[in-house]
Amino acid sequence: MIVINTLLEMRKWIARKRKEGCSIGLVPTMGYLHEGHLSLVKKACRENDVVVMSIFVNPLQFGPREDYAAYPRDPAKDSQLAQEAGVDVIFSPSVLEMYPQYPPQTTVEVKEITRYLCGASRPGHFTGVATVVLKLFNIVTPDTAYFGQKDYQQAQVIRQMADDLNINVGICTVPIVREADGLAMSSRNTYLSPAERQQALCLSQALMICRKQYEEGERNSAQLKEAMKERIRKEPCVQLEYLEICDQQSLQSIPEATGSALVAVAVKIGKTRLIDNILLEEKQHV
Amino acid sequence: MIVINTLLEMRKWIARKRKEGCSIGLVPTMGYLHEGHLSLVKKACRENDVVVMSIFVNPLQFGPREDYAAYPRDPAKDSQLAQEAGVDVIFSPSVLEMYPQYPPQTTVEVKEITRYLCGASRPGHFTGVATVVLKLFNIVTPDTAYFGQKDYQQAQVIRQMADDLNINVGICTVPIVREADGLAMSSRNTYLSPAERQQALCLSQALMICRKQYEEGERNSAQLKEAMKERIRKEPCVQLEYLEICDQQSLQSIPEATGSALVAVAVKIGKTRLIDNILLEEKQHV
Repeated sequence: MIVINTLLEMRKWIARKRKEGCSIGLVPTMGYLHEGHLSLVKKACRENDVVVMSIFVNPLQFGPREDYAAYPRDPAKDSQLAQEAGVDVIFSPSVLEMYPQYPPQTTVEVKEITRYLCGASRPGHFTGVATVVLKLFNIVTPDTAYFGQKDYQQAQVIRQMADDLNINVGICTVPIVREADGLAMSSRNTYLSPAERQQALCLSQALMICRKQYEEGERNSAQLKEAMKERIRKEPCVQLEYLEICDQQSLQSIPEATGSALVAVAVKIGKTRLIDNILLEEKQHV
Repeated sequence: MIVINTLLEMRKWIARKRKEGCSIGLVPTMGYLHEGHLSLVKKACRENDVVVMSIFVNPLQFGPREDYAAYPRDPAKDSQLAQEAGVDVIFSPSVLEMYPQYPPQTTVEVKEITRYLCGASRPGHFTGVATVVLKLFNIVTPDTAYFGQKDYQQAQVIRQMADDLNINVGICTVPIVREADGLAMSSRNTYLSPAERQQALCLSQALMICRKQYEEGERNSAQLKEAMKERIRKEPCVQLEYLEICDQQSLQSIPEATGSALVAVAVKIGKTRLIDNILLEEKQHV
């Protein structure tokens, strides 16, 4: 595995691999790797000849009062984990390399689908995400790019952007990886104190309550949400940011969880913002 | 020469040419071709193995009170002219093919450089231009794309977008082609009545007055602009929209036309909006 820090070197490496006829998988990350990232790498390795992992904490997707400076970084450990998982190249550019002028004059705006969920609570966030992902696509020119389902809305924004801009990159989402007790893996889990870590379980547990009620036949969104809120309210340090049951495509709220639904939740525990989600699918009766 | 109307066919043709090792030039147009367009084609033919001309009147770059519906179209004559000039493929998609959802959720915004000149008088125009050009780049994947200098700001916006988004396409601008009497070639010239056509000469003549004063040593922008305005004021039906002397890179107004300056003018003659420009360059003394 090699580490590349410049656009020029990255483009050269890609051109060489393309000449050899290799298919290319891209796993865009902000580093501080966990099993969730590694599951993306494993899928990318199965489906491509070579796999590039980008590690770039993208300032453009952080709000002014968010945790850009504090975002956890551990390049040495990331290298080791990426290599073990089968990554061929870590592409880890500096902010100056990615944004010679900051903020950049050009951004990619995705409307409608960004009005909901994290888009509503983090204005500008998905503009930053879409812009940096398009830049990475243009630099790495992958056949397929891999995104975690934990950031469900992010993956949908990228899909929408790819459709709208005729970007010839396959977008693949990979299921959430959870700790043994159910907490969705996230680099931000490292912020949690032991007490907060315990209370953070209310996210996955609320979602499990929702799934159980759904499997028992409940479809009313208000009912399902109330059951989840009841679980979350038990934790004194957990502040609910949003809890929505929405259409998997448009992300618009739906009053009944019929068809294909997304249940998405965001909370703050102390200063740490955590998100989680599940997909509910009507079983197809053949 | 062939005409392709679908993204799928266009991508297939490009993939075939890429396999053959061809370099690809793209000339994006809105059709109703004139000598200006053909000069782009000629340059593209000299520099590439194959040349794609896109013909697409892009609704996204027209304001609600602009001339989208009335914009002149003549596909049969365009085909003939394009073929004679050496175009290999005309890519002429429908609006539905380019925008399955209209307006699209995703747009490309270029800030700063779009605050001036046409960007100031046509809000949203350059968002429409940048978005459609990026789509065309993603579909055709050209090595180089060719733009006319008459739309100087447009070419600069595309350059800025390409830089900011790491788009691997060379951007080439080609000098303005003029009628024998000096009028810059434009598809919109067809709107002009004979009387308006005569008055339209004030654009190029004002710019020639500017160049003459500049060559005689005048550098003061207010002075140069006043001389041009005097010429334009002579025409009763010509309404000045803007007249600026600005930096060629940033497009910001400059009080003295030193270094590399752009002199840009936009007018309305009746209902017809026309633009023109010249570049002023300090001679390099070796």
